[in-house]
Amino acid sequence: MSAKNAFYAQSGGVTAVINASACGVIETARRHPDRIANVYAGRNGIIGALTEDLIDTSQESDEAIAALRYTPSGAFGSCRYKLKSLEANRREYERLIEVFKAHDIGYFFYNGGGDSADTCYKVSQLSESLGYPVQAIHVPKTVDNDLPITDNCPGFGSVAKYIATSALEASYDVRSMAKTSTKVFVLEVMGRHAGWIAAAGGLIEDHDIPVLILFPEIEFDQARFLAAVKAKVEQHGYCTVVVSEGAKYPDGRFLAEQGTRDAFGHAQLGGAAPVVANMVKDATGYKFHWAVADYLQRAARHLASKTDVEQAYAMGRAAVEFALAGHNAVMPTVKRTSNDPYAWEVGEAPLSQVANVEKFMPREFISEDGFGITAACKQYLIPLIQGEDYPPFEHGLPKYVTLKNAPVERKLGAFEL
Amino acid sequence: MSAKNAFYAQSGGVTAVINASACGVIETARRHPDRIANVYAGRNGIIGALTEDLIDTSQESDEAIAALRYTPSGAFGSCRYKLKSLEANRREYERLIEVFKAHDIGYFFYNGGGDSADTCYKVSQLSESLGYPVQAIHVPKTVDNDLPITDNCPGFGSVAKYIATSALEASYDVRSMAKTSTKVFVLEVMGRHAGWIAAAGGLIEDHDIPVLILFPEIEFDQARFLAAVKAKVEQHGYCTVVVSEGAKYPDGRFLAEQGTRDAFGHAQLGGAAPVVANMVKDATGYKFHWAVADYLQRAARHLASKTDVEQAYAMGRAAVEFALAGHNAVMPTVKRTSNDPYAWEVGEAPLSQVANVEKFMPREFISEDGFGITAACKQYLIPLIQGEDYPPFEHGLPKYVTLKNAPVERKLGAFEL
Repeated sequence: MSAKNAFYAQSGGVTAVINASACGVIETARRHPDRIANVYAGRNGIIGALTEDLIDTSQESDEAIAALRYTPSGAFGSCRYKLKSLEANRREYERLIEVFKAHDIGYFFYNGGGDSADTCYKVSQLSESLGYPVQAIHVPKTVDNDLPITDNCPGFGSVAKYIATSALEASYDVRSMAKTSTKVFVLEVMGRHAGWIAAAGGLIEDHDIPVLILFPEIEFDQARFLAAVKAKVEQHGYCTVVVSEGAKYPDGRFLAEQGTRDAFGHAQLGGAAPVVANMVKDATGYKFHWAVADYLQRAARHLASKTDVEQAYAMGRAAVEFALAGHNAVMPTVKRTSNDPYAWEVGEAPLSQVANVEKFMPREFISEDGFGITAACKQYLIPLIQGEDYPPFEHGLPKYVTLKNAPVERKLGAFEL
Repeated sequence: MSAKNAFYAQSGGVTAVINASACGVIETARRHPDRIANVYAGRNGIIGALTEDLIDTSQESDEAIAALRYTPSGAFGSCRYKLKSLEANRREYERLIEVFKAHDIGYFFYNGGGDSADTCYKVSQLSESLGYPVQAIHVPKTVDNDLPITDNCPGFGSVAKYIATSALEASYDVRSMAKTSTKVFVLEVMGRHAGWIAAAGGLIEDHDIPVLILFPEIEFDQARFLAAVKAKVEQHGYCTVVVSEGAKYPDGRFLAEQGTRDAFGHAQLGGAAPVVANMVKDATGYKFHWAVADYLQRAARHLASKTDVEQAYAMGRAAVEFALAGHNAVMPTVKRTSNDPYAWEVGEAPLSQVANVEKFMPREFISEDGFGITAACKQYLIPLIQGEDYPPFEHGLPKYVTLKNAPVERKLGAFEL
């Protein structure tokens, strides 16, 4: 069998460890030059494939590729671009195959969440029917932890570690100040649909921190919430609130959508944290502080979970190994084999069962009152944040890599997105 | 000379390393039992002294005190409580002396910023005139870096390292996403009066990140700012903005005070970051994300600067050594003796020159256009963020200490604050 090229692309929101998966893909491919001639990366994700804007990763040194393991973000660029259904836009899928054919690409590694799993699956199906079969392997990635079958998604463990650590540190701060100043600290975290990230905030309860969590899965009940805050402050002198950006009222409105207007009458896009903080202040008079972690949480490679880094790398490596073993339309998964001590191995899931399935927090992971997490949830979460994997630092800052990202020469005409 | 007790209190906003100073004070005092019998800490800062709510630090093990070195926040509680002037409230100063006398306290170590330096100075003066002389030593602490004479303040270096690292990581994230999604990322940082913390964001320029800084020292010019954002995005595809919470319009209004109202007409307390982000969106249409680091930045012991930790500890140790050498009404300082390689030693400043003097960013540290920092500023900042000093972790989270904080038996009647 002659060597084919591989195509690798990053999709959707990036994470602290998606480049560790890229590292796993490229380093493993480099060990099999007889089977994989070169890895071409899509510049800005799948858009790079559609527009034939490919990056020649063979121009990067082994050191640069190794540095991907500890560099956050998407080294080749990512995109938010969802391919439409085959029926609605067959043209895009055909273009992908055309580009793959032009560049002798036999392997398609797509690193993303649910949408990209779906795209990956379709590419595999269509390539077959178009007579240019491509082995399509999906590499799981999402801070939201919402992919099915896999025990957890690379990217999530590091955000969870960051949020739990940050909430712990800020809670110590508030505890110091509560006598005369801040009594309530509100931290807004990501997770528009699923409360996995917010749940990580619940881990600080075991450090004696009074914490309340507002999950997207639990309808927000303002009166019950305010009573819970008061009870915590009366008992402990202070309270930390972790609010998911996806927390919403029973009518489906997000907490963040408060119809606020600026001085000119423009609708003001705020966060959920200031809304919750002001709500507490209005009802109780407690002094508050709030933070919105936003990109800081998913980019915080300096505090990545070692477990997460290892799994992200392993998913990239396994994707290539699956491809070399002839598998198609599959995704490597993390399979938990033991809780204590935590042990895991690489599993495999057919993309037909992954595409378009979202995994939510099980209700039994959320405490009965809806404001905390259960022992089962802690048992699930704690292994995922285990271990530290610090990047190298230089002059006081992390020394992350920026690749050359040299283009591959184009062979086809332009393509309108 | 018989042994006296020492009183130690933490004042104002806490930091990632104020407990390292406490560690320096207590460990050094413990090495001189012939001179310092015991260190009593004020529960919740100076309020603990006024209300005779003292903590007996001798109840804490050597291990617990050593753990203060890597535990953020104020281990004994802090407070925002400014003693009035001697004329306006002589009663409070007299009460302090009364408490010190009742507990045989001969040394007063006050760990804080400008206000507490002033209090410390007054206590020293008044104790003399009341016939119970106390040696009052101020231990510098403030994330705002606004104390005079000392080259920098313990607490600042770690915030600077956190902000520069976070801005760098988030910028990598934005760079990945900019093709189809977020083009402008806005990070709000602390520093109501002085732009030192915001300046730290400028360090990422040397990592090829297009960054604009909004300083409190520079009047905000909306048209110039928006033009600068557009220029950066057109050149680089994206842009990071670091905005100080203290950034303001020429008329003195803070950017954060936009007169925003919620659906019920209540004034909405927002941050400067969403205001700036929405302003950019309205003018350019660029998709944005924003973060407000708030307490996360000053509590982030997990990413403390090693230099900062060492200096914080050294200030605590020097305070005790100064006291033992008979000094009074002074503050240990950080004295920079060399830039490259960076070297520093402990200096000493009379409190009469420290109290009520605020140090602002020199104009020559801010670039001519007002949106960046100069080479001189970088030369000043880089040594302060040098080195990492990670806390121990357990089960994936930092293992910080919570002290027993056992009370000292009261000897006096109650006191109304």
